[in-house]
Amino acid sequence: MNAEIVAVGSEMLTPERVDTNSLYLTGELNTLGVEVVGKYVVGDHVNRLADVVRLALSRSSIVILSGGLGPTEDDLTRDAVAAALGRKLIYHAEIAGLLEQRFARLNRKMAEVNKRQAFVIEGAEILANDRGTAPGQWVEESGSVVMLLPGPPHEMKAMFERQCLPRLARLVPKRVIRTLELRVAGMGESDLDQLIAPVYKKYQNPATTILAGAGDIQIHFRAQCDTVAEADALICEVAGPVELLLGDRIYSRNGESIEAVVGKLLLSRQSSLTVAESCTGGLLGERLTSVPGSSEYFLGGFITYSNALKTAVLGVPPEMLAEHGAVSKPVAEAMAAGARRRAGATHALSITGVAGPGGGTEAKPVGTVYIGLADPSGTEVLHRQVLGDRTRIRMFASQLALDFLRRRLSAPPK
Amino acid sequence: MNAEIVAVGSEMLTPERVDTNSLYLTGELNTLGVEVVGKYVVGDHVNRLADVVRLALSRSSIVILSGGLGPTEDDLTRDAVAAALGRKLIYHAEIAGLLEQRFARLNRKMAEVNKRQAFVIEGAEILANDRGTAPGQWVEESGSVVMLLPGPPHEMKAMFERQCLPRLARLVPKRVIRTLELRVAGMGESDLDQLIAPVYKKYQNPATTILAGAGDIQIHFRAQCDTVAEADALICEVAGPVELLLGDRIYSRNGESIEAVVGKLLLSRQSSLTVAESCTGGLLGERLTSVPGSSEYFLGGFITYSNALKTAVLGVPPEMLAEHGAVSKPVAEAMAAGARRRAGATHALSITGVAGPGGGTEAKPVGTVYIGLADPSGTEVLHRQVLGDRTRIRMFASQLALDFLRRRLSAPPK
Repeated sequence: MNAEIVAVGSEMLTPERVDTNSLYLTGELNTLGVEVVGKYVVGDHVNRLADVVRLALSRSSIVILSGGLGPTEDDLTRDAVAAALGRKLIYHAEIAGLLEQRFARLNRKMAEVNKRQAFVIEGAEILANDRGTAPGQWVEESGSVVMLLPGPPHEMKAMFERQCLPRLARLVPKRVIRTLELRVAGMGESDLDQLIAPVYKKYQNPATTILAGAGDIQIHFRAQCDTVAEADALICEVAGPVELLLGDRIYSRNGESIEAVVGKLLLSRQSSLTVAESCTGGLLGERLTSVPGSSEYFLGGFITYSNALKTAVLGVPPEMLAEHGAVSKPVAEAMAAGARRRAGATHALSITGVAGPGGGTEAKPVGTVYIGLADPSGTEVLHRQVLGDRTRIRMFASQLALDFLRRRLSAPPK
Repeated sequence: MNAEIVAVGSEMLTPERVDTNSLYLTGELNTLGVEVVGKYVVGDHVNRLADVVRLALSRSSIVILSGGLGPTEDDLTRDAVAAALGRKLIYHAEIAGLLEQRFARLNRKMAEVNKRQAFVIEGAEILANDRGTAPGQWVEESGSVVMLLPGPPHEMKAMFERQCLPRLARLVPKRVIRTLELRVAGMGESDLDQLIAPVYKKYQNPATTILAGAGDIQIHFRAQCDTVAEADALICEVAGPVELLLGDRIYSRNGESIEAVVGKLLLSRQSSLTVAESCTGGLLGERLTSVPGSSEYFLGGFITYSNALKTAVLGVPPEMLAEHGAVSKPVAEAMAAGARRRAGATHALSITGVAGPGGGTEAKPVGTVYIGLADPSGTEVLHRQVLGDRTRIRMFASQLALDFLRRRLSAPPK
């Protein structure tokens, strides 16, 4: 079974924007055994959009559109799909009512334009949107289906998962697809590939994909078979040797983020965490608190960007700052120890570094990073040189800190 | 004049890959005054590709394909375009000769499959590829042009720049394109559209595009004319009234982020900033320090996630936390005032809220946010109810805080 995906919106036709909704949708469709054979980006233009929907429907039985469901006159997806299918748009007073209630709950009056969102293609099922105002639509036509989904990724994903996947499961013939995702911290992509390519290159099924972020690599294995047992056996044949080669550099086997893994380790050890951040400016705290329920183990932290705050809040001695500089091993150590004491946490992480683009010196070039880790057994400091721009250096530094803590918490007690 | 861009290759239809060649091509075409009205990604499949080329040619006079010009059986762009135009492919012995020489220079023997690359569409001009083996093709047909370019970005860019741009300059009437970008904080997309649509809807030129993020909206105006003066006048005709309608909700006119705008305002007033974050967990600090040079005005901050830290570090009275709860006006006020005192900054922002998914109550549902702002004149608190998931609520809260400070700093001194 084939699918085609259409991203709608003139802003997606500028030199600055790429459509990423289709990547999520492709992943989900592939998992069902559905292949994506075409993708389109079309501006806010009824006829051009209708042309593309007709073409896609002429050769694929699943067509998914995202975007163009908003309340403005630019939002023409409803009109275009209705035109392509030769159906009418029908006003649903109950949708307008729900939209009005939604605005009322926020103590706001609904703008008149929002009523555009209450028009539904004749014969379509309405897909509830619990994260925004634009309802989606599911339209079947002689064995094919067209889905109209909202453009904002968080709305689109929630709607696809909750409303479309269950409906698709009825349409798509069953084929077993099993996946395994390994996540690895603290290695470069080419080093990793050199290590594991001799294993995975031998196999077409499972397919192996490597995705690299700043200090974070995901390895996806994906096997298609008739039975779960066959697929799992194929995956293990490749993943087993890969896991042995990578050892404890693997931090998760189920798609869990390193923030979540660290959180579970802290919880299981009844430990608590605080952070002291300089060059990352709050990024480490932000990542830790992106996990729901993180207040169970994360107490808070200190963004000691200025030297004065490092001294006043964390007790880093001014002489130490003067002698070694803020980006140094002793300061990273004093920051971690000071934060731990100050917050009364069992564990503390500190980050100090040169994120650039300015501020580098010959001895401490842009990308110099020190990570401190304080726990009941003492304080340790990691020194690394990171390549890249300001954003990558900051992300990489926060990743190093999280992995440093993960290894400490995973190690058998001394 | 309109263009459409086709990326060819099944690997571009996986969940991990996006087509980026089209971004470069869009930028170059826009500079010539050519608008891109459709983009496609098609796998290695002759009929599907030919369909897309026919559709694109039926409505745009410039069609650019990248990829699928290599020597393997997967490389079908030549065949598909020939089929779409109803022309033959003709073997050019002199191209095969050049390819053989190229291999000989590398001391390699050319594989037989490489001869596929010597087939040229009847009537096409050959575009030399000085960075790879695949020659490009330029095919004109009743006033339209189809370009076949190689897929690797460095080959595609060099060929487009050296071979296609000079040819395009002869086809495309000279046009000037001017743009203006307004950024707006603190408004919903539909409220904003209702306010300004009566102005911008009257104009096709400039084209107006609205992009909405969490509490952040970008409005792009784009005018095409014969001269810079005309284009600028057209933009002002629309942007002038829009600016008046939006007033001080506009925070930048040159693409600058709100973090950068706030930073400049702080610098110009020789002021300094600290933050006290609860539900955002460091995000506000992270955003402020994403701006290079932010250490000039940002001193640092306090991630007071636990109540104990709110008391110990910021001096929020335990009785206040017990009586009003951590998510409350008095606590936001005490956090801002405490952070300002503690860091010795002229200004302090605080954020406390319920980011969810858990922790909501009837009185304080998920999305309840209080923002505190302390400065030499005292402390003020903003209360807002934000819709969305944890990520959006946190982003929206940080945006509200930055905008609260921006307005305070922009206001004439009392």
